[in-house]
Order: sequence, then C-alpha cells, then structure tokens
Amino acid sequence: MPPQPSEPDAADLDLPRVLRALADPVRLDIVRYAHAHPGAPCSTILADVPKSTASHHWRVLREAGLLHQEPAGRQKLNHLRKAEVDTAYPGLLDAVLAGRE
Amino acid sequence: MPPQPSEPDAADLDLPRVLRALADPVRLDIVRYAHAHPGAPCSTILADVPKSTASHHWRVLREAGLLHQEPAGRQKLNHLRKAEVDTAYPGLLDAVLAGRE
Repeated sequence: MPPQPSEPDAADLDLPRVLRALADPVRLDIVRYAHAHPGAPCSTILADVPKSTASHHWRVLREAGLLHQEPAGRQKLNHLRKAEVDTAYPGLLDAVLAGRE
Repeated sequence: MPPQPSEPDAADLDLPRVLRALADPVRLDIVRYAHAHPGAPCSTILADVPKSTASHHWRVLREAGLLHQEPAGRQKLNHLRKAEVDTAYPGLLDAVLAGRE
C-alpha cells in the first residue's frame, strides 16, 4: 500500500524525527499496540485521549514514517511501518519495543 | 566513577527521556563523537556552538543518563555511558550510532 501524502517514503526517514516521535510515553504505547495488533483502528488504540491530543500523536507518528494509516469507512486502521524503519535503522524499533519505561 | 548529581543511576533511566535526548542532530553528533573519542573535552566536541546552547545540550545528555562528565581542571571530559544504556535498552545505542541521518 503506498504511503499517504503525509507519510514519508522509506528513503526519506530522518533519524532525529523518528526518535522525537518515539520520545513520548503515549506514542510509545501506540507504537507497541500497533505492533502487537496490526490493523487496529484509532478508536481502539487511543480510546480515552481527547481528540485533538490524539490527532497530534497520529500526525507526529505518520510524519516520522512510523505509522501507516489505512482509511476504512469512517475508521483508520493503523500499521506500524516496521519493515521500512528496520531497513533504515536496523535494531532501533526492536530495542524500543522491548525497552522497559 | 560515580555519576555526578545530575546524572541518573542506570536503574533510573527513562526511555522517553533517553529518546528525547537523542532526538536532536547536535546531540546525536555529540553522542557519536563521545563514543568514538572517550574522554574528549567539551571544548573539542562542541567548538563552534554558543556557550548557552552547548550547556543546554550537555545538560540534556547528562540528565538522560547518556553522558558522564568528569571534571579535569577547567575542563570536563566526556564519557558515553554505553554500558549502562546497553543494559537498560539493549541494541538502542548501537542502532542510533549506526543510523544514517
């Protein structure tokens, strides 16, 4: 599936931007949940977060290239772009997914 | 060598804080330089950066637990706390040190 307009190509990933996107407890939870539950809808992942806060987190993750959001009716389904991030920064996501907080 | 007051113990490292400290091109350069040149003085690593900006970067890296600064006369010598960070988050620093920007 091609990236949406706000999702960079794999070749355009930027390490500081990827790290900044991961450097937040809520976004770390999103990344872990999306990894454990591929295709999970936004409403399931961030059920109790105000909509504007949630929108911000989704955008940061999409724009860093960490998350692909697939429109499905009124929902968006989330896929961690693990293969692309692994290719650009081998071992980074595995270390983050495994890391205690 | 014991950590300075502003340097957390290894057990107190915090993943979002570590990632935030790494999520900056200047601080990534510092981390890479300190890894390649253990004990390098601050003045060698950040020669052309205004002092207040440099102080900010040193503090963020120390407080995240990434850098140990050892006083030596009027200098401070920098040591990447790789063993501690590797223990807390295996593979994270290796991925970051190897990562293209």
